Amino acid sequence: MAGNSIGKEFVVTSFGESHSEKVGVIIDGCPAGLKLSEVDIQADLDRRIPLQNPELVSGRVEKDKAQIFSGVFNGFTTGAPICITVENKETQPSDYESIRDLPRPAHADYTSRVKYGGFNDYRGGGRFSGRVTVATIMAGAVAKKLLRQFDVYVLAYAKSVGQVKMEKQMSFEEIQKHRYESAVRCPDLTCADQMETSILTARKAGESLGGTVECIAVNVPAGVGEPLFDSLDGDLAKAIFTIPAVKGVEFGAGFALADLKGSEANDVFQIQKGQVTTATNLAGGILGGISSGMPITIRVAIKPTPSIAKEQQTVDLGKMQNTKIKVGGRHDPCVVPKAVPAVEAAVAITLVEHMIRAGFIPKVLKEQE
Amino acid sequence: MAGNSIGKEFVVTSFGESHSEKVGVIIDGCPAGLKLSEVDIQADLDRRIPLQNPELVSGRVEKDKAQIFSGVFNGFTTGAPICITVENKETQPSDYESIRDLPRPAHADYTSRVKYGGFNDYRGGGRFSGRVTVATIMAGAVAKKLLRQFDVYVLAYAKSVGQVKMEKQMSFEEIQKHRYESAVRCPDLTCADQMETSILTARKAGESLGGTVECIAVNVPAGVGEPLFDSLDGDLAKAIFTIPAVKGVEFGAGFALADLKGSEANDVFQIQKGQVTTATNLAGGILGGISSGMPITIRVAIKPTPSIAKEQQTVDLGKMQNTKIKVGGRHDPCVVPKAVPAVEAAVAITLVEHMIRAGFIPKVLKEQE
Amino acid sequence: MAGNSIGKEFVVTSFGESHSEKVGVIIDGCPAGLKLSEVDIQADLDRRIPLQNPELVSGRVEKDKAQIFSGVFNGFTTGAPICITVENKETQPSDYESIRDLPRPAHADYTSRVKYGGFNDYRGGGRFSGRVTVATIMAGAVAKKLLRQFDVYVLAYAKSVGQVKMEKQMSFEEIQKHRYESAVRCPDLTCADQMETSILTARKAGESLGGTVECIAVNVPAGVGEPLFDSLDGDLAKAIFTIPAVKGVEFGAGFALADLKGSEANDVFQIQKGQVTTATNLAGGILGGISSGMPITIRVAIKPTPSIAKEQQTVDLGKMQNTKIKVGGRHDPCVVPKAVPAVEAAVAITLVEHMIRAGFIPKVLKEQE
Amino acid sequence: MAGNSIGKEFVVTSFGESHSEKVGVIIDGCPAGLKLSEVDIQADLDRRIPLQNPELVSGRVEKDKAQIFSGVFNGFTTGAPICITVENKETQPSDYESIRDLPRPAHADYTSRVKYGGFNDYRGGGRFSGRVTVATIMAGAVAKKLLRQFDVYVLAYAKSVGQVKMEKQMSFEEIQKHRYESAVRCPDLTCADQMETSILTARKAGESLGGTVECIAVNVPAGVGEPLFDSLDGDLAKAIFTIPAVKGVEFGAGFALADLKGSEANDVFQIQKGQVTTATNLAGGILGGISSGMPITIRVAIKPTPSIAKEQQTVDLGKMQNTKIKVGGRHDPCVVPKAVPAVEAAVAITLVEHMIRAGFIPKVLKEQE
Repeated sequence: MAGNSIGKEFVVTSFGESHSEKVGVIIDGCPAGLKLSEVDIQADLDRRIPLQNPELVSGRVEKDKAQIFSGVFNGFTTGAPICITVENKETQPSDYESIRDLPRPAHADYTSRVKYGGFNDYRGGGRFSGRVTVATIMAGAVAKKLLRQFDVYVLAYAKSVGQVKMEKQMSFEEIQKHRYESAVRCPDLTCADQMETSILTARKAGESLGGTVECIAVNVPAGVGEPLFDSLDGDLAKAIFTIPAVKGVEFGAGFALADLKGSEANDVFQIQKGQVTTATNLAGGILGGISSGMPITIRVAIKPTPSIAKEQQTVDLGKMQNTKIKVGGRHDPCVVPKAVPAVEAAVAITLVEHMIRAGFIPKVLKEQE
Repeated sequence: MAGNSIGKEFVVTSFGESHSEKVGVIIDGCPAGLKLSEVDIQADLDRRIPLQNPELVSGRVEKDKAQIFSGVFNGFTTGAPICITVENKETQPSDYESIRDLPRPAHADYTSRVKYGGFNDYRGGGRFSGRVTVATIMAGAVAKKLLRQFDVYVLAYAKSVGQVKMEKQMSFEEIQKHRYESAVRCPDLTCADQMETSILTARKAGESLGGTVECIAVNVPAGVGEPLFDSLDGDLAKAIFTIPAVKGVEFGAGFALADLKGSEANDVFQIQKGQVTTATNLAGGILGGISSGMPITIRVAIKPTPSIAKEQQTVDLGKMQNTKIKVGGRHDPCVVPKAVPAVEAAVAITLVEHMIRAGFIPKVLKEQE
Repeated sequence: MAGNSIGKEFVVTSFGESHSEKVGVIIDGCPAGLKLSEVDIQADLDRRIPLQNPELVSGRVEKDKAQIFSGVFNGFTTGAPICITVENKETQPSDYESIRDLPRPAHADYTSRVKYGGFNDYRGGGRFSGRVTVATIMAGAVAKKLLRQFDVYVLAYAKSVGQVKMEKQMSFEEIQKHRYESAVRCPDLTCADQMETSILTARKAGESLGGTVECIAVNVPAGVGEPLFDSLDGDLAKAIFTIPAVKGVEFGAGFALADLKGSEANDVFQIQKGQVTTATNLAGGILGGISSGMPITIRVAIKPTPSIAKEQQTVDLGKMQNTKIKVGGRHDPCVVPKAVPAVEAAVAITLVEHMIRAGFIPKVLKEQE
Repeated sequence: MAGNSIGKEFVVTSFGESHSEKVGVIIDGCPAGLKLSEVDIQADLDRRIPLQNPELVSGRVEKDKAQIFSGVFNGFTTGAPICITVENKETQPSDYESIRDLPRPAHADYTSRVKYGGFNDYRGGGRFSGRVTVATIMAGAVAKKLLRQFDVYVLAYAKSVGQVKMEKQMSFEEIQKHRYESAVRCPDLTCADQMETSILTARKAGESLGGTVECIAVNVPAGVGEPLFDSLDGDLAKAIFTIPAVKGVEFGAGFALADLKGSEANDVFQIQKGQVTTATNLAGGILGGISSGMPITIRVAIKPTPSIAKEQQTVDLGKMQNTKIKVGGRHDPCVVPKAVPAVEAAVAITLVEHMIRAGFIPKVLKEQE
């Protein structure tokens, strides 16, 4: 019953529940000499809440403030573990008692109760709340700052929300620039408007929506990833599946590759400006579990928010009989916007792990700026 | 540069390359008291090669014979590590030298060369050959035998090959019975014929095909899986991505969930024969990273075999200039049939790992039969 | 550069430096259902400071107050990671700047500076301060409470301080009762007085003393420990060596066994009250890395406190020349008293780890009282 | 029940029992580009048996022949896992059945039987036989070859056998040159003779002897070791305790430090030939869990061989009553000679692990010679 750490070199340990006093993260293995302050963390925390449209988010608009407890001295990481936390503002038991025995469909209420013999903190989903992605995001902020020292950049954005798909082709730079301008985190702002509308429509109907998140990482050098079992794609997938609501992960053309012929699917090699590249990138930058130097591209399926206003069938676990539930409170009608920075963080953490393992990131950094 | 082990309780370590003397596996953490012999392993090894139609497989039809070197005594596992190997029959250098500098498109030739500074064994793809799935399959055979003691069954089968999709609904028992009857490992034998035809057509055209593999595990008790990072779905995905050619993994309805509304996607709970079940199983048996007791369903995207007879563009890494390559020899025109037992093995290994961690499999087994 | 976690099932991750904002610990893998509150932690924290004689301790008498941030709900552990911290009261830079370039002999100042390229937090020894044993002690408090549910008890005490050795034979119960009565943590109170006197004498002379700590764990069931590499003795030793100033660890008769003959050293088996026991226990309760059911006995060598008032030779790392240093401030003239609870904690943590792995501690506890 | 691997970067997995078909080791994480052949392994295997005096060893004089199954290509390591094995010549059940229920005192017979519910391979001690150190020694041979590329040398030798202690001071080079000249592996050949005599005397009396092994590693750069838990001394101790019969480990002056005053125990720093060194080395080259650049010195307590010809008391586990046992067959009357190369191997493996982690050994080696 231990599984709250990820990584072997850049080890991220997460703690906290929806209503515990704090949610936080320990980063063990961050190289010494990275310029780091709470401001670096705060930027990513702020992007977690799509403030552009408060109707897109649950009632709980957390104004999280990152606090660093250890591992930073004189403005630089020391090589010792870095503990970063945020407070949970709402830690008082509310009306959760009444629904304790009624597992919400598609939530982890039932499975966690079984697993922990009823000792789990069931308030707000406890350890299974989307709230705990805050820990991942804080670690991701550190990872991304570290990656930038090596010119590696990671971004994620909403590719689809329900039936609305972003079709427009945009450059990495354009996506980077615009994706956080819209509340839904889609860089195509016209499409973003449609996504927003569809979410609000769903919400009014007591419904929720899912969608897909795309993530791109550029400038990852060729040679990153450890076969056989610690493959780069395997570890990226594992990290991404820790984000609640993720139900599928694919690299490059992914499932579409299953329908192609070899000559259509193979990315042929070519020399370009003295570098080995591929003419296409249907493999998504990974071959044999190792990065090829091409952009790493990932697509992630997000299921609709389980909490919906509509009445649903469920069971009363105390009485062991069928019953109905109306999930009260206010919930994100679509978690895609919040999943965007979480995917980005999960990918960044995994890239740092593997770049350290492959020898691209040293244990002590050179002077910065 | 270590990543050839998977698991924390049921630790599987793989070794061997396409042309090394042996390919093998160490299983550390197998409970003591499991009845085990080479016959148990052999059955799964035999199913790796679709002998029904030799044209579906590469020239190298390995008659692998499993040998157990340790960890079994008097017919039962001892609790000590189990080493199982097969020999590589063809270990002589052939014409690989000539194409050493020409990475085959979509293979790991280029990435492994970069990673290992040219010291990698490039013969037949070396450590990146599909050949090494033999190790996984042998560990999977042990895992499946262990799971059967707890009434848990895992199966995989070809769901699609290129454009040919199996649409027929079949029960778990029917799939189990028929899937290995066809060379393509599709239990719908009519569909299997079409798949076979399409593979042979592709092959004649110097092409290859991909496809999808579906995997189902039944009777996994509710409560298996360790949040946050060692989630059951995350670890299953990681294990599956170690199989060469896998480009996507989804659970339950997977990517299709992204397009649904909450009320359509949520599996509502119900009491059925005194048990908590869900009316539907779009979640694929996993909620919050923990098994729900419903069947675990997984779909895996397999890319077309990279080795095709058609001439392709590539680069000469010695001269750093563009060139052409014709991949010689005989190759599987579609790896879906061989991926089927590999997926099954990867899933079984992961289930054993997590059932041990969750306390469902003890360290010493009770007397069998 | 990650090594701040220990354990695979009961994973203890430590963070914090001498002058960081907090020092704390995450316990991942504590079974759900353990009654736990800050009071349980506080008791052990309080025993860290030998208040009976303030002259035995450094100026910094920390009144540490444990805070639990996560993982406990309604008075019981939830199965989620438990974060427990204390504040560092003195976090302001003092006069450390002046001695930054002068490594104190026998401290980690020099080695940590080399390792972290000078980015290490050098204030008060930073991550290498005895201060960080607070984290271990807090985790140990949880471990000991858990062990008590299974009737396993661990205690440590001062066996020698400098030349003063405790020779008196005392029962486990007597030791348990009296050891914290004396400031030096020796249960033989007459001997304790002599130890105290010798420490104060040393201190007046600008000197420091070392000593030995003995640790005993009773009622550990036979069968705990994982050969080959994760042996019970190996893991106990590893855990104990994390305590600053430890230079040797032995089990049972330890080094004395090297001088004996086989017939003198072998503990013969006997049936006693229907149980298999050994007539003697020179092996210290461990055979082949596995517990035998006899008391586990460990002796630990503690070097004299490196910080002494006497002037010592050292080097100026800036100028790379020989120089002198007088270590200012007030320091513990002997760390044996503080090492006692730290050894106890390290042993308790390791026993829990291995009792979980051996199946003696379940993932969810039964109702307590 | 998994614990047969050690290391995170240079992962050594051991398998095999006294009477299994093979004993072997997988090394995962060995850098690519190390020149390696079976000859390198064989040299260390040969030194395991003190052929100078066959009376010092058990009847079973294994002529082990190392076989490399994977991970080496064209004479160099490839970066893939290296599997090396030896055969067990005697794998036939002998008279072990008769003593199955009679645990030999001070052996692991009883503890392993309890742990594995009687499924353990009890022939010749099974997994707990000294025989399995062969696996460690083979991995150590690779580790030592790797260390030599970085000018790091490790040696061990017999420091005492029973009451006979080697007092003579010898240089590293002298020890290195002479230690394997004597059957007891003591470089002081006069002392070696006395040791040999005392072993033979003990043997004639139906007795056995213990002793101490000293190990020295030179040229380990300063900065190797990961605080807090993965300290260099902690990990060295853990590795050494995996060798059967080890009951104590100390660094530098070890337990003797407990009796000293601070000013006697502290190794003062000095500049010597432009390098920071210490005037003495009572710390044994490790401060705060990190190497200081001084020689690493370790002393290991070895208990007398448990198997003695004298009749001893034991219990019949079938009948649960007291009985007597005479351990038949021929056994090493002192395991110190065989422990010497095992300690050397355990230390070398740990040093490689930590030098990789600290960044001193790269993932791909430069051309050698």
